[in-house]
Amino acid sequence: MDAEIIAVGSEMLSGGRVDTNSLFLTGELNNLGVEVVTKCVIGDDRERLADAVHRAFARSAIVILSGGLGPTEDDITREAVAQALDRRLVYRAEIAEALARRFAQARRQMAEVNKRQAFLIEGAALLPNDRGTAPGQWVEESGRVVMLLPGPPYELKAMFERQCLPRLARMVPHQAIRTLFLRVAGMAESDLDQLVAPVYKKYENPVTTILAANSDIQIHLRARCATEAQADALLAEVAGPMELLLGDRLYSRNGDPLEVVVGDLLRKQRATVSVAESCTGGMLGERFTAAAGSSDYFLGGFITYTNAMKVELLGVPPEMLAEFGAVSREIAEAMALGARRRTGSTYALAVTGVAGPDSGGESAPVGTAYVAIADASGTQVVHRRFLSDRTRVRVFTTQMALDLLRRRIKVG
Amino acid sequence: MDAEIIAVGSEMLSGGRVDTNSLFLTGELNNLGVEVVTKCVIGDDRERLADAVHRAFARSAIVILSGGLGPTEDDITREAVAQALDRRLVYRAEIAEALARRFAQARRQMAEVNKRQAFLIEGAALLPNDRGTAPGQWVEESGRVVMLLPGPPYELKAMFERQCLPRLARMVPHQAIRTLFLRVAGMAESDLDQLVAPVYKKYENPVTTILAANSDIQIHLRARCATEAQADALLAEVAGPMELLLGDRLYSRNGDPLEVVVGDLLRKQRATVSVAESCTGGMLGERFTAAAGSSDYFLGGFITYTNAMKVELLGVPPEMLAEFGAVSREIAEAMALGARRRTGSTYALAVTGVAGPDSGGESAPVGTAYVAIADASGTQVVHRRFLSDRTRVRVFTTQMALDLLRRRIKVG
Repeated sequence: MDAEIIAVGSEMLSGGRVDTNSLFLTGELNNLGVEVVTKCVIGDDRERLADAVHRAFARSAIVILSGGLGPTEDDITREAVAQALDRRLVYRAEIAEALARRFAQARRQMAEVNKRQAFLIEGAALLPNDRGTAPGQWVEESGRVVMLLPGPPYELKAMFERQCLPRLARMVPHQAIRTLFLRVAGMAESDLDQLVAPVYKKYENPVTTILAANSDIQIHLRARCATEAQADALLAEVAGPMELLLGDRLYSRNGDPLEVVVGDLLRKQRATVSVAESCTGGMLGERFTAAAGSSDYFLGGFITYTNAMKVELLGVPPEMLAEFGAVSREIAEAMALGARRRTGSTYALAVTGVAGPDSGGESAPVGTAYVAIADASGTQVVHRRFLSDRTRVRVFTTQMALDLLRRRIKVG
Repeated sequence: MDAEIIAVGSEMLSGGRVDTNSLFLTGELNNLGVEVVTKCVIGDDRERLADAVHRAFARSAIVILSGGLGPTEDDITREAVAQALDRRLVYRAEIAEALARRFAQARRQMAEVNKRQAFLIEGAALLPNDRGTAPGQWVEESGRVVMLLPGPPYELKAMFERQCLPRLARMVPHQAIRTLFLRVAGMAESDLDQLVAPVYKKYENPVTTILAANSDIQIHLRARCATEAQADALLAEVAGPMELLLGDRLYSRNGDPLEVVVGDLLRKQRATVSVAESCTGGMLGERFTAAAGSSDYFLGGFITYTNAMKVELLGVPPEMLAEFGAVSREIAEAMALGARRRTGSTYALAVTGVAGPDSGGESAPVGTAYVAIADASGTQVVHRRFLSDRTRVRVFTTQMALDLLRRRIKVG
């Protein structure tokens, strides 16, 4: 069974907007054993879109459209698909009423144009959207299907997972597909590939993909077999030797991000953590608190962007700042000690560095980062230089801090 | 004149590989005044690709293919395009010789399969590739063109800029293209559209696109005229009335994000700001410091995730926490006052709320957010409830805090 994906919207045909929905959808379809044979981005042109849908549906059993379901004139997906399938659009008062209730909950008046979203293609099943105003539609015809999904990834994802996947699973012949996500910190992508390629290159099944983003690397293994047990055995056969090679650089075997892994370690230890941030400006605290339930272990911290704040809020001695400069091993250490003293946390992490674009002088070029950790047994400082831009230096530094804590807990 | 872009390669239809060439090509084509009306990714299937090329060429004057020009069996672009245009493929010995020389230079033996790269579509102009082995092709037919470009971005970019752009510039009538980016805070997309659609709907030129992400809306206007002056005048004619309607919700006329706009206002005032964050956990500080040069006005702040930290670090009275709960107007205000007192900043912003997934009890359901601002003239608190998930509630709250500061500075 083949699938085609059509993203609708002129905004993805100019400027820098990319269609990321198709990546998610492709992954999910592949997991079902469905191959994506074509994906397209089509602007807000009804005739062209209707033609594309018509042709896609003639070739492929599954056609998924994303976007163009909003309330405005240039939201043309409903009309175009109706035209392609030669069906009418029917106004459904109950959809308009549900929309109005949603607006009322948010204490807002529903605009008249939103009623355009209450039109359903004749014979379609409604896919309710609890994350936005645009309902989706599922249109089946002689064992084939066209899906109309909203464009915002957050809405599309939930709708696809909860409402489309179960329906698709009934259409698609069963295969057992099992995946494994290994996550690795503190390695470059090319070094990692050189290390593990001799293992995974021997196998066509599972398919191994290495994805790198923001100094975090994921190794994605996908096995397809007749039974789940066979697929699991195959995954273990390939992942085992890779895990041995990766050692303690491997931090997750289930795809959990680093802040969740570290949070679980802290929770198990009944330990707490606080932060003191200079160049990351709050990003480290933001990462910790991105995990639901982080109040179990994350107390809080200090954003000390200026020298005065390092003195005032963390008690860093001014003469130390004068002697070593704000971006130094000594100051990172003093910041961590200050945060731990003032919050009473088990661990304190401190970050100081130069994110750029301007440098901190000769001793601290752009990309310099010091991360310190303090606990009852003392302090430890690590130092790196990242050759990258402001945003990525900050992200890398945050990742380095989380990984330092992970290793510290593991060793302690 | 319209263009279509077709990326060839099954690798972009599974796993995380994205077609980035089309972003580059779209930008370059837009600059010439050429609109990209469709872009597609098609797997290594000759019939399907030939069909897509045939149809694209029937609709659009410019068709650009990237990828599938390698030496192996699954490199099918040459054959598919020849089939679509009903032309023969011709073996050109001089291409094979140039390839052989290239291999010799690298002290490598040319494989026999590389000779497949020496086939040219009848009547095509050869586009030499000095960055790789795959030569490109330029096929013109009655004022229309199909381009075959190599897949690696580094090769495609150079070939397009040096060899295709000059040829295209001769085909495409000269136009001036000017763009304007308006950014708006604190409005839902549908409300905004209802407000400004009566203005922009009257114009086909400029083209107006509305993009919404994370409670931030961009209005993108692109005008095409014979001269730049005409395009600018047209933009002003359309943007003027929209700006009047948007009033103080419009925060940027040049595409700058909110943290940069707020930073510039603070810098002009020689004012400083500090933050006190509960549910956003550092995200507000992170946004402020995402702007280069933010040390001019951002002092730092407090991440007070627990009640104890609100008491310890910000001096919030414990009896107040007991009376009103951490997520309340009163506590937001006390946090802002505490941050301002302890940092000496001109403005202090405080955030407390319930990001979820667990609620803060009856008085504070998931999505509740209080943002307070304190300055010399007193305090102000705003309250909203966002119907969304943890990440987005945090992002929305951060945006609301930045916008509150922007308005406060504007009014003061």
